[in-house]
Amino acid sequence: MSASQINDLSKLCIHTITCKPWTLEQAAKKFSAAGVGGITIWRDALTGRNIRETAKLLRTLNLTVVSLCRGGFFPSLDPSARKAAITDNIKAIDEAAELGAPLVVLVCGAAPGQSLADSREHIREGIAACVHHAEKKGVVLAIEPLHPMYAGDRSAINTLAQANDLAEYFNSPWVGVAVDVYHVWWDPDLQHQLIRCGEKRNLSAFHICDWSVPTLDLLNDRGLMGEGCINIKEIRGWVEEAGFTGFNEVEIFSTKHWKEDQAIFFDKIINAYQHCS
Amino acid sequence: MSASQINDLSKLCIHTITCKPWTLEQAAKKFSAAGVGGITIWRDALTGRNIRETAKLLRTLNLTVVSLCRGGFFPSLDPSARKAAITDNIKAIDEAAELGAPLVVLVCGAAPGQSLADSREHIREGIAACVHHAEKKGVVLAIEPLHPMYAGDRSAINTLAQANDLAEYFNSPWVGVAVDVYHVWWDPDLQHQLIRCGEKRNLSAFHICDWSVPTLDLLNDRGLMGEGCINIKEIRGWVEEAGFTGFNEVEIFSTKHWKEDQAIFFDKIINAYQHCS
Repeated sequence: MSASQINDLSKLCIHTITCKPWTLEQAAKKFSAAGVGGITIWRDALTGRNIRETAKLLRTLNLTVVSLCRGGFFPSLDPSARKAAITDNIKAIDEAAELGAPLVVLVCGAAPGQSLADSREHIREGIAACVHHAEKKGVVLAIEPLHPMYAGDRSAINTLAQANDLAEYFNSPWVGVAVDVYHVWWDPDLQHQLIRCGEKRNLSAFHICDWSVPTLDLLNDRGLMGEGCINIKEIRGWVEEAGFTGFNEVEIFSTKHWKEDQAIFFDKIINAYQHCS
Repeated sequence: MSASQINDLSKLCIHTITCKPWTLEQAAKKFSAAGVGGITIWRDALTGRNIRETAKLLRTLNLTVVSLCRGGFFPSLDPSARKAAITDNIKAIDEAAELGAPLVVLVCGAAPGQSLADSREHIREGIAACVHHAEKKGVVLAIEPLHPMYAGDRSAINTLAQANDLAEYFNSPWVGVAVDVYHVWWDPDLQHQLIRCGEKRNLSAFHICDWSVPTLDLLNDRGLMGEGCINIKEIRGWVEEAGFTGFNEVEIFSTKHWKEDQAIFFDKIINAYQHCS
């Protein structure tokens, strides 16, 4: 099953980091004026701002706050750093609640000086230490499997199967999974794991962008939808088949696109969303 | 089970590309003088050389030719390119036989303009078209699963499970699997898939290097063993547990190390092999 054509922007959400050169207020106004339905706020965009005031502005602009990016980074060889990470995740949950974001995306972390197995255990412990607070505040913690090329330093959770295992271990409405096509598109088990994720009611967020060929930088060379080789429409079809009815979130880190006039880049995003997603 | 300490160089094999600034003859003499047991020849190193004479030189130097790198690159949207790839793989098998290499490593390929499923089917067809010739020449075709970051353009076979599936589909002593820690270290299913690979008698080659943090280039920033975060000793333990008794092949593409005095880099390889592998 391939996804149906996208005809409006009501299910489109754009991450503040996608148009990083814009301030949160600039981005929110542009998104709103174009009829974009949602916005995901990166924590750096909140720096120096009153969160309640920001939430009010976004409501006024009729933008749904889809999620807060990001928590996680639980593993460390240093126990005090692990404790500090939990404190920071509790703070992220508070910020999300204040902002009206129903979800915090978890980039789970990895500590290069220890085994992936140990990092995975630290992640489990870290989430366990936060889940009660997440429930209290009504915020979902969404485990995002990261591409295996980030296993060295950004996440020891590298497949959707692992994210599903971890979410199912918690078996809580406050722990889910965030799926980004960039991280999982290569996985031969993807369709099956998406269905599993949906059946267990863990499919909490869906991010889109593209994989450029060649990719020149491991972090900041993501493509706009249509610029690369990811079967985005097909994957969106599987995600919808799995029962997901939420936003399609455009999350692009791109030194190239950040250098563009953001108004022009924004028009490209709208066009790519309607034709290549 | 962790691997036992390495006490000599008899099981060490170095790929010609690891010391790319050296000619094949320079590399072979240095390897031999140090007591290195094996050499894997990259086809570019054979350019302009008589293969029989080269084979004779390597025998004289008491070097075992472990494999020829590389065949593969089967998928293409253009049927004539797929045919040309098969012709080239037949040629690689001939070269390996002439060189006395028992194995050709397959970097299977991916064509960005088509689905991974289609690329995977082209790979299956390509190997099928070569396996009879491989048998005739006594050369093993070793499917190398490549890191998922190469799914866009270098290989649609991205996990050891996929390589195992494909090798088992052929169920032939002339189709095996080449395992490189760089490509598979992140895989939560690695130990299990290595045992499976050994049980099915498909574990044909074992490559080592390291994953640097940060990695600055997707292709040419591999680390020397000990420079990165891969649990090489543990993986070697699993490989040996799986029944593998062949060479440990050092395969490093590194702009940084290629810039070094290769004699100094070679000493570092020997040291890293004995202490970090």
